[in-house]
Amino acid sequence: MSPNQPPVSFDEIRALLKELPGPDEAAADLALARQEQLTKPSGSLGRLEEIAVWLARWQGRASPGMERPRTAVFVANHGIAAKGVSAYPQEVTQQMVQNFVHGGAAVNQLCSVADADLRVYEMALEKPTGDISEGPAMLEDDCARAIAYGLMAVEEGFDAMALGEMGIGNTTAASAVCLALFGGAADDWVGRGTGLDDAGLKRKTALVEQAVAVNRDRLSDPLSILCALGGQELAAIVGAILAARLARTPILLDGFVSTAAAAIVHKLVPGGLDHCLVAHRSAEHAHGRLVEELGKVPLLDLDMRLGEGSGATLAFLLLKAAVACHNGMATFDQAAVSRRSRDN
Amino acid sequence: MSPNQPPVSFDEIRALLKELPGPDEAAADLALARQEQLTKPSGSLGRLEEIAVWLARWQGRASPGMERPRTAVFVANHGIAAKGVSAYPQEVTQQMVQNFVHGGAAVNQLCSVADADLRVYEMALEKPTGDISEGPAMLEDDCARAIAYGLMAVEEGFDAMALGEMGIGNTTAASAVCLALFGGAADDWVGRGTGLDDAGLKRKTALVEQAVAVNRDRLSDPLSILCALGGQELAAIVGAILAARLARTPILLDGFVSTAAAAIVHKLVPGGLDHCLVAHRSAEHAHGRLVEELGKVPLLDLDMRLGEGSGATLAFLLLKAAVACHNGMATFDQAAVSRRSRDN
Repeated sequence: MSPNQPPVSFDEIRALLKELPGPDEAAADLALARQEQLTKPSGSLGRLEEIAVWLARWQGRASPGMERPRTAVFVANHGIAAKGVSAYPQEVTQQMVQNFVHGGAAVNQLCSVADADLRVYEMALEKPTGDISEGPAMLEDDCARAIAYGLMAVEEGFDAMALGEMGIGNTTAASAVCLALFGGAADDWVGRGTGLDDAGLKRKTALVEQAVAVNRDRLSDPLSILCALGGQELAAIVGAILAARLARTPILLDGFVSTAAAAIVHKLVPGGLDHCLVAHRSAEHAHGRLVEELGKVPLLDLDMRLGEGSGATLAFLLLKAAVACHNGMATFDQAAVSRRSRDN
Repeated sequence: MSPNQPPVSFDEIRALLKELPGPDEAAADLALARQEQLTKPSGSLGRLEEIAVWLARWQGRASPGMERPRTAVFVANHGIAAKGVSAYPQEVTQQMVQNFVHGGAAVNQLCSVADADLRVYEMALEKPTGDISEGPAMLEDDCARAIAYGLMAVEEGFDAMALGEMGIGNTTAASAVCLALFGGAADDWVGRGTGLDDAGLKRKTALVEQAVAVNRDRLSDPLSILCALGGQELAAIVGAILAARLARTPILLDGFVSTAAAAIVHKLVPGGLDHCLVAHRSAEHAHGRLVEELGKVPLLDLDMRLGEGSGATLAFLLLKAAVACHNGMATFDQAAVSRRSRDN
């Protein structure tokens, strides 16, 4: 992250929330009408039909496209990592950035299969956020700068974006954010992340509880929760979700951390995630409850829990399939196929 | 189907069952060992890891490939269609073959996205099977000829095959086969197919019950059940599954009809479907119970119920993703990424 990134004040972000465009229902209606003409029983392509109409609605085009998808991976470090909340040491964050750059990570291969553009955003790795078990993760200016960074990562002209993240310790931050946003007990929201053992899980749970307790006077609204308990990559994802709405770019959320960041937007503005789908159900404990809170049904359920945008990039393939069927199939009239002989 | 297709006797098919090769566990072990070296927490790619190892096991290669997938769609007509068991008239079977040929069906678009070869096998559409509610679908010779047709549809050199079908009335045949194979009540196994209304569903259920009753003396073993209650495309899928095992070609089963055909193999020989995965959970009522009977967990669950190999072809994309990660990711050593700092 550039230190020269212009901060956007929380008030400016709140003002932006009032400017978010709604759906293009005219485009969606045209897409839906076309689906009813295609050579298949109505509804028989299931969620592929839903995806095509959703893309039409949020791209604002009756014939949606999936030629240009982009995966954005926001990477940051977390002070809480020093407390042993991950099975991996903090240096892995930087090492994985190098792995992304050299094309060796899972998300590189998945982008290649999906023909997706990959951008990795390294956010001041040498400056981890504050340890949330002892105080706030960020000051308001830092958080606003990270949101602005995410806002600026969205360019015009992409058909869809996958929002992923990488950062040793960031499932702990995501769990704390969820506990503050939705309540419940700490262990409702805490999982094994990259593979904690039982003792590690217990320690992590206690630290999440402590983080919310220590920061209790800083949790008055969703942006304050993000600031106190989140991380730079979570803040960037919040910014990217908002900018994508403005740019008419449908979003695929990835796993637990990506969805936890999205939950901030959900709490900030009703319908704020209508242009987002949850790409997959993560194996990370708590993702299931989180997607329920958001009223979303994940597209895939493959027991994945890697992060780095891997599940969302994989789901680009479903979007491509949905668009190919929508735009490429013949209609009943074109193919001279008889329609149903009896109707309900 | 060529009338000159050499029939294979049921005895010859039973002999073939004893020749089916087992898994290549050496290749699978090497693949599994590689998965543990790749730059991700162990198991974090979930079923993508399982898929890669399964492909290695059944292709017999530690580095599995997905360059050459093929979708085979077997098409046939059913005498029972005259009884009004489908929302569509029987002429649609032939019309859809033309749609496949002209590239206008869903499976054409999905093959294009998955870069899969598509073969459509038209099986004597002018000669529907017998009406199963009044007698047997096929004589043993016809059934053996259809199995042989499926056996011969499998060529060497494909990395995986998707087995699909099309045939107005064929979910009725599939339901009758399942009822005979697994017992229970007719309505456990009957669904709306292409979209029957309530009256149609009731009629279809009664006909399935009647089909099993009328043919009760012909249901002594799985091949006889296939012959009496199935259809030519179901028989061809049985043949293709067996030939694929011999050719070391992993199989993706599609929806209810494709999986019902596979159930014949499951009942014929223990482990006979180990080289097959169920690509998706169909929205057709009864597919859920059927995959449970087979001990399979579908890869996708997208509320699809189109048939024609659409779900299986879509799942090729997951296989491609799994192989890309398996073969393309860097190892911890290659990428100089630190390993976990604490272990269970």
